[in-house]
Amino acid sequence: MTSQELRAFVIDFFNNKMPFNQLLGFTVSHLHSEHVEITLVWDDKLMGNPVHKILHGGVTAAILDTVGSLAALIYGINGLTDENAVKAFYQQLPDGGTLDMRVDYLRPGKGDEFVATAQVIRRGNKIAVCRMDLHNHNQLHIATGTGTYVI
Amino acid sequence: MTSQELRAFVIDFFNNKMPFNQLLGFTVSHLHSEHVEITLVWDDKLMGNPVHKILHGGVTAAILDTVGSLAALIYGINGLTDENAVKAFYQQLPDGGTLDMRVDYLRPGKGDEFVATAQVIRRGNKIAVCRMDLHNHNQLHIATGTGTYVI
Amino acid sequence: MTSQELRAFVIDFFNNKMPFNQLLGFTVSHLHSEHVEITLVWDDKLMGNPVHKILHGGVTAAILDTVGSLAALIYGINGLTDENAVKAFYQQLPDGGTLDMRVDYLRPGKGDEFVATAQVIRRGNKIAVCRMDLHNHNQLHIATGTGTYVI
Amino acid sequence: MTSQELRAFVIDFFNNKMPFNQLLGFTVSHLHSEHVEITLVWDDKLMGNPVHKILHGGVTAAILDTVGSLAALIYGINGLTDENAVKAFYQQLPDGGTLDMRVDYLRPGKGDEFVATAQVIRRGNKIAVCRMDLHNHNQLHIATGTGTYVI
Repeated sequence: MTSQELRAFVIDFFNNKMPFNQLLGFTVSHLHSEHVEITLVWDDKLMGNPVHKILHGGVTAAILDTVGSLAALIYGINGLTDENAVKAFYQQLPDGGTLDMRVDYLRPGKGDEFVATAQVIRRGNKIAVCRMDLHNHNQLHIATGTGTYVI
Repeated sequence: MTSQELRAFVIDFFNNKMPFNQLLGFTVSHLHSEHVEITLVWDDKLMGNPVHKILHGGVTAAILDTVGSLAALIYGINGLTDENAVKAFYQQLPDGGTLDMRVDYLRPGKGDEFVATAQVIRRGNKIAVCRMDLHNHNQLHIATGTGTYVI
Repeated sequence: MTSQELRAFVIDFFNNKMPFNQLLGFTVSHLHSEHVEITLVWDDKLMGNPVHKILHGGVTAAILDTVGSLAALIYGINGLTDENAVKAFYQQLPDGGTLDMRVDYLRPGKGDEFVATAQVIRRGNKIAVCRMDLHNHNQLHIATGTGTYVI
Repeated sequence: MTSQELRAFVIDFFNNKMPFNQLLGFTVSHLHSEHVEITLVWDDKLMGNPVHKILHGGVTAAILDTVGSLAALIYGINGLTDENAVKAFYQQLPDGGTLDMRVDYLRPGKGDEFVATAQVIRRGNKIAVCRMDLHNHNQLHIATGTGTYVI
């Protein structure tokens, strides 16, 4: 399995095999060590507050956790030899990997489309710390977060 | 509107008028100042990790945010005169009210049913801090969180 | 080295060998797995705000971090055989062990004396999550925190 | 009082009138809306861990809280008319203003000198969210944090 094939495999896994990602409509749109990105198109089912038509805070938390765990995962499996990579991937599936997360809600979650990005800011043997951000299609900064992940 | 009617109104709003709560299957099961509780029955669509069959971390974050915001909201509208209560409720709808939240994932989110509870631990004029917990049907402590809310 | 001797050793280390603990006046007053406690007597040098005479937020953060790391450490070295305990203690000295911490400032830090306590709420092989609280001599809840520690 | 005089007044207050800042040796080295900076020279009294000679985690938390509160304060008093500015400053003294803070310890706190910086990332009427960073004299990223402040 080449690194390109592994990337395609992970993207397929997140987009098509993780039921909650599909339920919410998350799409992994970039997956490289230095640029991990998930996009989300507005859907009325994602509203918390129907009066103001904004994303439920749980959607924001979910997409930040997911993009952060993906960044930690990619960092963790990066550089593995081919035969170990898939095994490592399965062992490090991200939901089990989040230790804790902080989310700051900066602006109401309004928009036609949203983009979540993540960067690894601490790179230990076992632990990664990621910073995550959510912007809408107008580049408004909706939320930011910090997550600690086991890798 | 009596306080009993207001409580019924808020429960109905959270259970039936907030689309994301319905999508996930959240049910407000207790709503008193000292005991706020949301229950969630396992559904495969809530899985993050299909290998281990555990809740997506975003579901955990969403239910903790929701139960915390509900506790802050109930505290905030408590003691309002009847005519002001509904207006206050609409102005303080919880998604807009979360400033920030920390979630700690203590154990894998396995279970047939989950119960999220919240307590207000800081009671200011404008700001409430809540502590939230998620247990499964076996009383295993799945997650804990702390949230800061505008009330 | 008996477990009683190890406890005395750790208490002496925190109270007398960690310069910043001495500078601030921290005293470890209880050290058991289920009850870890640090006391602090008011001193004007600990003020942040001389107008209102309250503790600097950094003092609150420092005592919460310290009591949490102590709880994690005691949990980590608990049950070690005698010959491994001191070695383990040195390897796990707490400042290097904090991954992240959240502090919530609930009330102004006023008081003649303060008591910080901690409980371990997640007990993994490598990671402990602790909840910490700070009260003053009148049992007022000054602050709460959550910390993630490598053990 | 001109804005230049107010800046000098705030710097003097933080550097010379806040006892805990003096105890630790914090020096406000830049104070503009877009660039707030506190420097700290290594001193053995700031050690948590004398074995590894690193900063106590509480020092890191204290300097991050202080630089974040300063950034929030400067944003808050910016643009005030002269006669209101000093009064507002006294009423908004920063220690009372921190609601909550997360600190992530990224690397051991080693260095001859440390620089803490802060940016305001949410600018509400009453609430500011700041991101804070601590680097050593070699530009190594020691810690990062996020704080929520009442302004």
